[in-house]
Amino acid sequence: MWGERMSLQSFLQNTVREGDLTLRLPGGRTLRLGDGSGPPLVARITSPMWAARIAAKPGLGVGEAYMDGGLVLEQGDVADFINLIGANAKYKAHKKRGPLKRWLRDRRREANHRRAARRNVARHYDLSNELYRRFLDEDMQYSCAYFARPDMTLEEAQLAKKRHIAAKLALEPGMKVLDIGCGWGGMAMTLAEETGAEVDGITLSTEQLALAQERAQARGLSNRVRFSLTDYRDVPGPYDRIVSVGMFEHVGRPNYQAYFDGIARLLTDDGVALIHSIGRPEGPNVTNAWVAKYIFPGGYIPALSEVLPAIERAGLYVTDIEILRLHYAETLKAWRERFAANRAEVAQMMDERFCRMWEFYLGISEMAFRHRGHFVFQVQLAKRSGTLPITRDYMGEAEAKLSRPDRRVA
Amino acid sequence: MWGERMSLQSFLQNTVREGDLTLRLPGGRTLRLGDGSGPPLVARITSPMWAARIAAKPGLGVGEAYMDGGLVLEQGDVADFINLIGANAKYKAHKKRGPLKRWLRDRRREANHRRAARRNVARHYDLSNELYRRFLDEDMQYSCAYFARPDMTLEEAQLAKKRHIAAKLALEPGMKVLDIGCGWGGMAMTLAEETGAEVDGITLSTEQLALAQERAQARGLSNRVRFSLTDYRDVPGPYDRIVSVGMFEHVGRPNYQAYFDGIARLLTDDGVALIHSIGRPEGPNVTNAWVAKYIFPGGYIPALSEVLPAIERAGLYVTDIEILRLHYAETLKAWRERFAANRAEVAQMMDERFCRMWEFYLGISEMAFRHRGHFVFQVQLAKRSGTLPITRDYMGEAEAKLSRPDRRVA
Repeated sequence: MWGERMSLQSFLQNTVREGDLTLRLPGGRTLRLGDGSGPPLVARITSPMWAARIAAKPGLGVGEAYMDGGLVLEQGDVADFINLIGANAKYKAHKKRGPLKRWLRDRRREANHRRAARRNVARHYDLSNELYRRFLDEDMQYSCAYFARPDMTLEEAQLAKKRHIAAKLALEPGMKVLDIGCGWGGMAMTLAEETGAEVDGITLSTEQLALAQERAQARGLSNRVRFSLTDYRDVPGPYDRIVSVGMFEHVGRPNYQAYFDGIARLLTDDGVALIHSIGRPEGPNVTNAWVAKYIFPGGYIPALSEVLPAIERAGLYVTDIEILRLHYAETLKAWRERFAANRAEVAQMMDERFCRMWEFYLGISEMAFRHRGHFVFQVQLAKRSGTLPITRDYMGEAEAKLSRPDRRVA
Repeated sequence: MWGERMSLQSFLQNTVREGDLTLRLPGGRTLRLGDGSGPPLVARITSPMWAARIAAKPGLGVGEAYMDGGLVLEQGDVADFINLIGANAKYKAHKKRGPLKRWLRDRRREANHRRAARRNVARHYDLSNELYRRFLDEDMQYSCAYFARPDMTLEEAQLAKKRHIAAKLALEPGMKVLDIGCGWGGMAMTLAEETGAEVDGITLSTEQLALAQERAQARGLSNRVRFSLTDYRDVPGPYDRIVSVGMFEHVGRPNYQAYFDGIARLLTDDGVALIHSIGRPEGPNVTNAWVAKYIFPGGYIPALSEVLPAIERAGLYVTDIEILRLHYAETLKAWRERFAANRAEVAQMMDERFCRMWEFYLGISEMAFRHRGHFVFQVQLAKRSGTLPITRDYMGEAEAKLSRPDRRVA
């Protein structure tokens, strides 16, 4: 026991150098960690087993301990605790695997062949539509909103996001659009209603599919918006436009080429695609072990340098790249607050451990966008170099037009 | 002779499959090449020596033959001839070198250590300021203009380019700006006059330096705009803003990391940089042998996938990437027309061979942007993720403000 406690202590003193953390160890000993800056936090590790697990695999262990009650906050809240982790992440001593071993592990983790892709999607998105209703906006947009103005509500910012993307798609009535990873159908329905496009939405989540179909029917859109349970590798095409929001994070590096080859294959010659995905400032990197195990199995957040080679090899032209920085931090903050407001209901629906897991997930995600340089990129692609107007002015003009109350096509 | 002529014939029939080219070979034989589409062209190869040189190294030989009178157009003009080359480029049978050999050759060609960089710059930019006056706009902007409206003159589009870039730099009066590759000083002077910034412009061309200093003095800007003959690796810094327009094409792949490390080193913590460079749709590729020998020794046009790794490793945040597509084709067309209008003067100043060389250079460059997917990228970089506003709206607002007649700060 003593040995384990000592190794935890030396690990903590090496890695927690900023902030103000008082840590009560099992057996009564107390460590003062950090430089005394920021809000004072008091945490307790409840058993020697948890001390050992955190020391052995901190990337996995801290999240598991929080989730399973092995780490209890006695003073301060989880958001401040997560900020302290984020501020100290730069001191983390990485255990280096050899590059070949790492490559093999990543290939395996992110392989995402059809059956694995479906299983990984089900793990997250089939949890319960009722859960997602408790923290998302009313349209159930489960991706970064666009705060065109800082005072926007989450609902307004999610609508602004859909219009921001619609504007970049340069849509015309009657165009055929494919939405890869359509979620609960909000984007597809907005595109159809506001631009007169015909949209095919595909998802691998049976829960999402059922609700998307129900919503389209209720809004009288079933003839122009169709949803199906289809893998992006199995769509016939062609489409005038492709949109894919918050789905590329699940593709995995071994499939980047297949993904962009698929987009090139599915687009008409004058086709345009808009891919909206989370990115990280440096690559290649490792997905946090806790996130990979409990939240997004099979996922990977790329650096831009990891995405562009596959785009170029697919023969697609990059026509614009917008980087959205703090928008996702604000989106996650809104989700976290809504989740907290509905926590009792969620605890009844799922359980207490699930609530702690979800709080930790939303908290570390917000921290990554606010303090660790994570961003969202919207990369616009075309099959031909001359398809779109030569300045970006059309984007702002289309966006303004979509936001006027009389704009609706259908 | 016969053997050489036959190998030229078989080379031509394999590679010229589109267009309508009648080629008169030395000795009287005539080849009809292409599929009969497009304007009819008649070209004559004037000697067996030129036939052999074109067959042996077409990438170098066609340009040299045109320049030195070994290939004469009897019907059609050089622009149509270049378009025919462009349309058939996809049939070119590349002689493959091994990857190691190619890598070694590229390292050598693009090494651009300080002395080589200066020599390569002198080869092009020190030719004669009077030459550049004969085809550039009055401000001598030797980079892609920005045709904010299609009816803009070259002068208007070059001013629009400078303001488009100024808007992305989010400049405030008194900020210190570094212009890497300042040319004849137009960008630096416009930034100082229109935003109140203090600008240091650096170039490796003595001709450019002399004229830039003369112009700054004539406009009463010598106290706020300083020019010097300095390598980007030798600037002390720091600067609030860095702008580099049409210079990155001369850096060469072996120096990409040093270039972006330099930008990271030179920027203040709240610093922003805007790099404007030509890009190509696929990479890695080979600089055309004729261009490398006669026009831009040491140069390399990258794919985006070749640029981003060095940016990320330098710890810089990409905050925006705009892709300008047909703007450079229009710019080059305007240069080509102005050059043609002043051809007699240039021939007297330089010589007839120089004029043919320059026509070929402007022609193949225009073709690359119009038909081969070349583009200009403007990549905006920041030291910190939270430096700039969270939407791109500020760019358009600043641009509109700069374009109002009462906007001048100084």
